[in-house]
Amino acid sequence: MDLYNITSPSFLKKLNKKELESLAGEIRSFLIEKCSITGGHIGPNLGVVELTIALHRSFNSPNDKFIWDVGHQTYVHKILTGRANQFDTLRQYKGLSGFPKRNESEHDEWETGHSSTSLSAAMGMAVARDLKKDSNYVIPIIGDGALTGGMALEALNHIGHEKTNMIVILNDNEMSIAPNVGALHNILGRLRTAKEYSKAKEELESLMKKIPVLGGKLASTAERVKDSLKYLVVSGVFFEEMGFKYLGPIDGHDLDSLEKTLEYAKKAKGPVLVHVITKKGKGYKPAEEDTVGTWHGTGPYKMETGDFVKSQTVGPAWSSLVSESVRKLMHDDKRIVAITPAMPVGSKMEGIQKEFPERFFDVGIAEQHAVTMAAGLATQGMKPFLAIYSTFLQRAYDQVLHDIARQNLNVFIGIDRAGLVGADGETHQGVFDIAFLRHIPNIVLMMPKDENEGQHMVKTAVEYNDGPIAMRYPRGNGYGVPMDDEMKTIQIGTWEILREGRHAVILTFGSTIPMVMEAVDELSHQGIQVKVVNARFIKPMDEEMLHSIMASKLPILTVEEAVLQGGFGSEVLEFASDHKYQNEIERIGIPDHFIEQGSVNLLLDEIGITKDEIVNRIQKIVVSNKRLGTKTV
Amino acid sequence: MDLYNITSPSFLKKLNKKELESLAGEIRSFLIEKCSITGGHIGPNLGVVELTIALHRSFNSPNDKFIWDVGHQTYVHKILTGRANQFDTLRQYKGLSGFPKRNESEHDEWETGHSSTSLSAAMGMAVARDLKKDSNYVIPIIGDGALTGGMALEALNHIGHEKTNMIVILNDNEMSIAPNVGALHNILGRLRTAKEYSKAKEELESLMKKIPVLGGKLASTAERVKDSLKYLVVSGVFFEEMGFKYLGPIDGHDLDSLEKTLEYAKKAKGPVLVHVITKKGKGYKPAEEDTVGTWHGTGPYKMETGDFVKSQTVGPAWSSLVSESVRKLMHDDKRIVAITPAMPVGSKMEGIQKEFPERFFDVGIAEQHAVTMAAGLATQGMKPFLAIYSTFLQRAYDQVLHDIARQNLNVFIGIDRAGLVGADGETHQGVFDIAFLRHIPNIVLMMPKDENEGQHMVKTAVEYNDGPIAMRYPRGNGYGVPMDDEMKTIQIGTWEILREGRHAVILTFGSTIPMVMEAVDELSHQGIQVKVVNARFIKPMDEEMLHSIMASKLPILTVEEAVLQGGFGSEVLEFASDHKYQNEIERIGIPDHFIEQGSVNLLLDEIGITKDEIVNRIQKIVVSNKRLGTKTV
Repeated sequence: MDLYNITSPSFLKKLNKKELESLAGEIRSFLIEKCSITGGHIGPNLGVVELTIALHRSFNSPNDKFIWDVGHQTYVHKILTGRANQFDTLRQYKGLSGFPKRNESEHDEWETGHSSTSLSAAMGMAVARDLKKDSNYVIPIIGDGALTGGMALEALNHIGHEKTNMIVILNDNEMSIAPNVGALHNILGRLRTAKEYSKAKEELESLMKKIPVLGGKLASTAERVKDSLKYLVVSGVFFEEMGFKYLGPIDGHDLDSLEKTLEYAKKAKGPVLVHVITKKGKGYKPAEEDTVGTWHGTGPYKMETGDFVKSQTVGPAWSSLVSESVRKLMHDDKRIVAITPAMPVGSKMEGIQKEFPERFFDVGIAEQHAVTMAAGLATQGMKPFLAIYSTFLQRAYDQVLHDIARQNLNVFIGIDRAGLVGADGETHQGVFDIAFLRHIPNIVLMMPKDENEGQHMVKTAVEYNDGPIAMRYPRGNGYGVPMDDEMKTIQIGTWEILREGRHAVILTFGSTIPMVMEAVDELSHQGIQVKVVNARFIKPMDEEMLHSIMASKLPILTVEEAVLQGGFGSEVLEFASDHKYQNEIERIGIPDHFIEQGSVNLLLDEIGITKDEIVNRIQKIVVSNKRLGTKTV
Repeated sequence: MDLYNITSPSFLKKLNKKELESLAGEIRSFLIEKCSITGGHIGPNLGVVELTIALHRSFNSPNDKFIWDVGHQTYVHKILTGRANQFDTLRQYKGLSGFPKRNESEHDEWETGHSSTSLSAAMGMAVARDLKKDSNYVIPIIGDGALTGGMALEALNHIGHEKTNMIVILNDNEMSIAPNVGALHNILGRLRTAKEYSKAKEELESLMKKIPVLGGKLASTAERVKDSLKYLVVSGVFFEEMGFKYLGPIDGHDLDSLEKTLEYAKKAKGPVLVHVITKKGKGYKPAEEDTVGTWHGTGPYKMETGDFVKSQTVGPAWSSLVSESVRKLMHDDKRIVAITPAMPVGSKMEGIQKEFPERFFDVGIAEQHAVTMAAGLATQGMKPFLAIYSTFLQRAYDQVLHDIARQNLNVFIGIDRAGLVGADGETHQGVFDIAFLRHIPNIVLMMPKDENEGQHMVKTAVEYNDGPIAMRYPRGNGYGVPMDDEMKTIQIGTWEILREGRHAVILTFGSTIPMVMEAVDELSHQGIQVKVVNARFIKPMDEEMLHSIMASKLPILTVEEAVLQGGFGSEVLEFASDHKYQNEIERIGIPDHFIEQGSVNLLLDEIGITKDEIVNRIQKIVVSNKRLGTKTV
């Protein structure tokens, strides 16, 4: 079978068991090979090879609607819907997306990146189907981790109530991104480990037949006991209680059981939940043996050995720098409690977890709960450190505003992966946080210029006791700058002059500082001297310095790797307006559209956040204003 | 007992049963009388009189921590903690808050307004207690409605997993804000309606004793059957599955059972859930007989009859105007589906619900699910209309961004209660939505100047098929303007000149238009002629008109009843900067702090959004620039 020749999943229905098994093997080899070069979410996809084949055999996509909650788990689906020939460009600029994309295929009905959206989307699609008197199936496929997200539980509750027809596939792999958390997980575990569950059911039924038949009230109680058989031990009582018909657990690598169960599910009325057990990394030893999540998503690796191709890095990973700095401070500061919503590995919190297990909490995919739990801790004098990716903090906007900031509680939010993230694309870019945080009263928001300032900011945040404080830091690594031995605090709301200049001023912070310095060097050779400010506090700004800069009447350029609308540059414009300054102010930042996948440098080029653009803009401003040589600071 | 003499809840422990019952009666009379004058959440508070007394007798506040999820249910708590003498100022400017306030009393440990935060906050407080080796109790009190909110379910899952000691009071009143929704509610209903439940338990136990003792595998199955007794019929299986010890259901108006159960709960290890059944409005006939939620929160009423004191209104309620306009369009447009997250009454959707029950969905307190379900509907060619209060839309920021806007889906969001809301105070002010929505790509955001334009905007939104569109409208009523017979569409991104003028320009929209027109009249008498623009599209702005205005070099004042940071005025500044205009631009709006309770007019006075401020600012701008008489448009 040549995977490149597939144009539609309909061919699957003609294959026999042997051919299907051979196909599964070919898909695995294909994925292992392709991802070894491009990187990608190899582990999760190896786990759903048979499941995806079975789904495409039992249903008719695109008439029937698959909604993949875990968007990065659609590689097999992409192969089976005719996209094998695009895998060389997987997750690359203008290439095949690592997630479902509506404009990529009619078989991609719903785009995901953030977790736990599938059940709500499925509810919408099922209601639409019923109103239109259509008869297609709606099949959300959700992971055990995603099920702990609040919105998935909201949807479960609503679907169970409305008794809407849909077939939910619970893809339960024993390793989601991080070892799963929560009571729900324990329930799934119990279902999963109940060996011989069908035999146990039979035994129970035979047992119940031996209950004496009784009259009156007691008889009706006995009836109830019989009814409640379904609630016993291995029967998915949680889901049944929520209004779902529960089927499973079934082996997600056994095509026969999968298809039989799916056929049975198709005949049921109302919502059905099919509990499928899969193994992440199935069929590739290095990934199968992973217990901590290394093989969840990877860069390139050596196919034969599973050794990762080391990328060139100089400084420490930003996540490590921040989490490890927090860990050091935890020795002396007993108030610090570290919280992660399911990202202990991504946020490099293993050190904290190991050394301070009692002060470390992985709450699962539950950003809202994570934020408000932190607020609760702060009311009792603790100092919570919440590490959370910028894009996922979006889920807890209201909790940051209503629970933390409104009560002005001392919570330290580490905003990880702030800025463009690259290959994960538009669902994961961390470019909105400045715009959605800076209008929240009481919050301090900062971003360091390098890892040394980063460690000082961590100490600053930990020792700040006047309300919430958030520190942004990018994906990737620091620059390898020398690190001070001692962490020290930075005065809140103070900026730093990186370079003096008499023709114009650039206000910037964080990841754009290096390109600004390069641009300014180049301009200097042209005789244009530009003052550069490390505007490390995005809120509050350094008003004293701003007054002095604006009073100089120099033109100002702001540069940020974040959305322009309501962003830092906009804040500078507001300041100028409020104080009636008339400086010429221009802004460079991310324009008003979603930024797709690609290497960060390519993306920055595309949207014009580059050294050349900075040079160009400053030249124009300075020359057109004929300010060259006429102003001094 | 003089309620005014209470200084601390400790007195309660000395009272006997008769005295307690008499106290409960006095509290009810007090609340009925006070709220008849001030208005307030009378129904919910009458329902928790005995529960609150029992809690304060069984526990020692403030050492033990009460976390009231439903913040508006703390009136009895406020009386018992020494605040009876402030009830004349309830929900008024600088008066007693209608919600818990940390700065009001040491007994208010956690502030709420938005629902479903209590369990997460309690988790934080319980963890802090354990780390500090304290031994206080942590007691979140959560309603059955709030339990359907995703973050409450996230917390339930995490608490059940960690087995953290806390006593959750589930206050299950059969009428929350709206009749409750969801599978969870059905479970509660089953528990609630199981009469003689304790008797049934006894019967079951005796029945199980009759099961023959069997050997081998079957015996262990029998054991499991016995273990699973607790899962049967009336035993709170859902909560037990989630890892909680379940107690109840108990009569929330029976002080003896309440106290006995609470004492039992105090002895348990791990998380306990006490299921308490209360009746909203208990003891006040008009409120007891309410089935739709009229007595949830009220304005003033006649104490004897329960007749509401009618407030003077001219035009239709904004919520009615919008929902009824949608209903009219639903006749011909079969794509429209209406969704509310638990606010069918507040959002005046009864008409839709009655006429189009199959196209109406109340999803419960589940804003995230509501938004993404709407997105799912839109993928299938439906046109969802989602009515949601501005303040509650904060809960679904990520879903609007990630699910609706990123996929550019045709969803119509009606943003109800946009702007200041008055007595509900800082948790409910709808002042952030412009700042958190306008940086989201693809979205159209608009606000009408009056109810006639409002109906046209509804039609505009319904017929717009290029992506998401949101319409803000304020709390309260329209102005009674003449209504066109036919709804018509307005061109997206077009503003309207309300008045010409040659000295300055005011850009404003929605609720601030009347005060601007008054100010401009006054200025006109002083010889200052101000152009006024109805900037009804906040995004996209009317760029053609903006270019023409800015090219005129007139000074510009923006006026908005929304936060200044990242708001509409900021957007105008961005436009000017992008296009290198040098107009003097000033902004009036809400400053960078949370706005407390009070009548909207008093609040606007406090923050300087007034006719006088507008007059003053325009005078200064025009005079200081010596523009008077020197410019024309």
